Amino acid sequence: MRFLHTADWHLGRRLFGYDLTAEQDDAFKQLVTIAQEEKVDAIVIAGDLYDRQNPAETAVAQLTKMISTVNLELKLPLLMINGNHDSAVRLGVGNQWFTATNFYLQTELAQAFEPIEMNDVQFFLLPYFELYQARQYFNDDHIRTLEQAMIKIMAAIKQRFVKGKRHILIAHFFAAGSLHSDSETTVNVGGLEAVPLDLLADFDYVALGHVHNKDALQNPTIRYSGSLIKYSLSEENQTKGVLIVDTEPNVKVKFRPITPLRDVQTVEGSFIDLTNTEYLSNHQINQDAYTGIILDDTNVISNASALLRQQFSHFLNMSRANGVSTFTAHQISTQEINSPMTLLTKFYQEMTQRSLSQQQQDWAEQALKEVDE
Amino acid sequence: MRFLHTADWHLGRRLFGYDLTAEQDDAFKQLVTIAQEEKVDAIVIAGDLYDRQNPAETAVAQLTKMISTVNLELKLPLLMINGNHDSAVRLGVGNQWFTATNFYLQTELAQAFEPIEMNDVQFFLLPYFELYQARQYFNDDHIRTLEQAMIKIMAAIKQRFVKGKRHILIAHFFAAGSLHSDSETTVNVGGLEAVPLDLLADFDYVALGHVHNKDALQNPTIRYSGSLIKYSLSEENQTKGVLIVDTEPNVKVKFRPITPLRDVQTVEGSFIDLTNTEYLSNHQINQDAYTGIILDDTNVISNASALLRQQFSHFLNMSRANGVSTFTAHQISTQEINSPMTLLTKFYQEMTQRSLSQQQQDWAEQALKEVDE
Repeated sequence: MRFLHTADWHLGRRLFGYDLTAEQDDAFKQLVTIAQEEKVDAIVIAGDLYDRQNPAETAVAQLTKMISTVNLELKLPLLMINGNHDSAVRLGVGNQWFTATNFYLQTELAQAFEPIEMNDVQFFLLPYFELYQARQYFNDDHIRTLEQAMIKIMAAIKQRFVKGKRHILIAHFFAAGSLHSDSETTVNVGGLEAVPLDLLADFDYVALGHVHNKDALQNPTIRYSGSLIKYSLSEENQTKGVLIVDTEPNVKVKFRPITPLRDVQTVEGSFIDLTNTEYLSNHQINQDAYTGIILDDTNVISNASALLRQQFSHFLNMSRANGVSTFTAHQISTQEINSPMTLLTKFYQEMTQRSLSQQQQDWAEQALKEVDE
Repeated sequence: MRFLHTADWHLGRRLFGYDLTAEQDDAFKQLVTIAQEEKVDAIVIAGDLYDRQNPAETAVAQLTKMISTVNLELKLPLLMINGNHDSAVRLGVGNQWFTATNFYLQTELAQAFEPIEMNDVQFFLLPYFELYQARQYFNDDHIRTLEQAMIKIMAAIKQRFVKGKRHILIAHFFAAGSLHSDSETTVNVGGLEAVPLDLLADFDYVALGHVHNKDALQNPTIRYSGSLIKYSLSEENQTKGVLIVDTEPNVKVKFRPITPLRDVQTVEGSFIDLTNTEYLSNHQINQDAYTGIILDDTNVISNASALLRQQFSHFLNMSRANGVSTFTAHQISTQEINSPMTLLTKFYQEMTQRSLSQQQQDWAEQALKEVDE
């Protein structure tokens, strides 16, 4: 059979305050097109559907619509688990009714040992779980690490292996050897230690979620699909997309990219250049992407973020390549401050690299006199 | 056919901070027993399943279990709408899948015009809606009151009436003539004005939710089932339960009570009596019910709530039948206060109706002397 492997949709997530609904909807639309072009037999989603345990109503409506498109409109079987960002209870609502249309949403550890059989494949859906749940399930208080839990889980799963069938694991954890990026670790990853790859060796394919970078793991059949879209500046150079997995005659995996509706970029340069429309246009710098700015100036620039925000419609943040010269007020020796007017003049000069105009001086002196009186 | 009519479960609601899960679970169990005894063909729930738009995870798990018991285990058809306390989006998750097992959960106004037909009955499920939704649906900006909206809705529903069938409306609003109680109005009831009974006259039966008192409306076929349990002190004298409705040969309604696991009561008396275990036992006053206390004393009693809380395991609040004598400190004339010790003595006397003992006087004098130094 052939299925599409995706994960880490993180519906409801924002990027520096920007709503990403349009980007997610567009990526989902491309995913549907790919599923149709590739004539897949099923869709696999390996956790982190939502960004939060208690997602906003808009995110709930968004996922409900996506899921209904895939399973009820396109009539595609759907295999899905919760990730560490999802609430098993909230995400799992209705799942007892879903199986009638081949929508298998498994959110309890016990369900990992009840494979879903489809064509000649046994799918084992291992939802994200907390260690205490593994201790309860196996009635074993000695389970203290994810590795200890996984050894037991894998043994129990393998007892259900039917010979002659393909065995596929759908799971959500950090596999040993994967490369971390920023955005999958910002929220609680409690209990998500690494799972050694050896433990996964007996599966024909492991469809993982959790790490947002599809290339984080260099293994032909243990794969992260990566996230649906870029969720942090650290993901700017990652290509997002989905994996198309064939199980016959041998497991074969193909990556199909998804083009971002609005890309994420980091732009480095001087403040003067990056606030100059002509410069930006000559250098083909996209002013509408989600943009992090790195300034290579070292002087203090007052109001820099606000001015950059005017230039870049989806400005995210600003940082400094070389740091900033020590704050200049400290450089004014106290001996020089013989009057408020001197302090003001020197401060203005240091902050703006310009001197007070005659009119500004007049205003300032007038104001200080009034305060004095 | 015969169905059970219930409403206003308000899962997640607390009573003066007390968790009511056990009470709700017990009432639900009785409801199931009644449904089985009465051999009903369906269960109707007229809104306010949850107490909040965004219910706690525990309430979500509780409702999911109840619903699955009724529809999947007992295989009873289920007709359900959202009330003003429910979020249509959150409550509605999965409803497209539910119809396969005759679970009709309707949360959109448009669905009111697609009757569910069962035996010889047409059920119209009108979910709680906001006026802007009616304006949108009818593309009519003139709809400014619930009555105006209901006139249009009723006309559209009646167009779907099939002759020879019974017509039953399931809805969640305040019907004109009903008696308000406390707890259904504490949270936002925006847009929930009264619906005149005339508008409902063409239905064979109207299964209403919203008002917690089953006797609030004196009409044989337009009925509130009342809430599942007592949700405020003002409901203490209401009998809770469910309605069993027969549609043939004529509509016949029967009330079946549900016995509270822990009842709600108000107890009135003097502080001395109500903190006297023998008195309470002689007067057969339940010390474990959810209890609101009304004191008929008029003097100030220090620490009264804390002492009553020791006597009544589920103490809710305390109020006064006759008010309290004006705060006594004001009655001490300023001329009498010639020393801190005098003030303290008089204050103690007024608050406790007793004089300071010699030992207390000694302590107080010692303490004041130390402060002085």
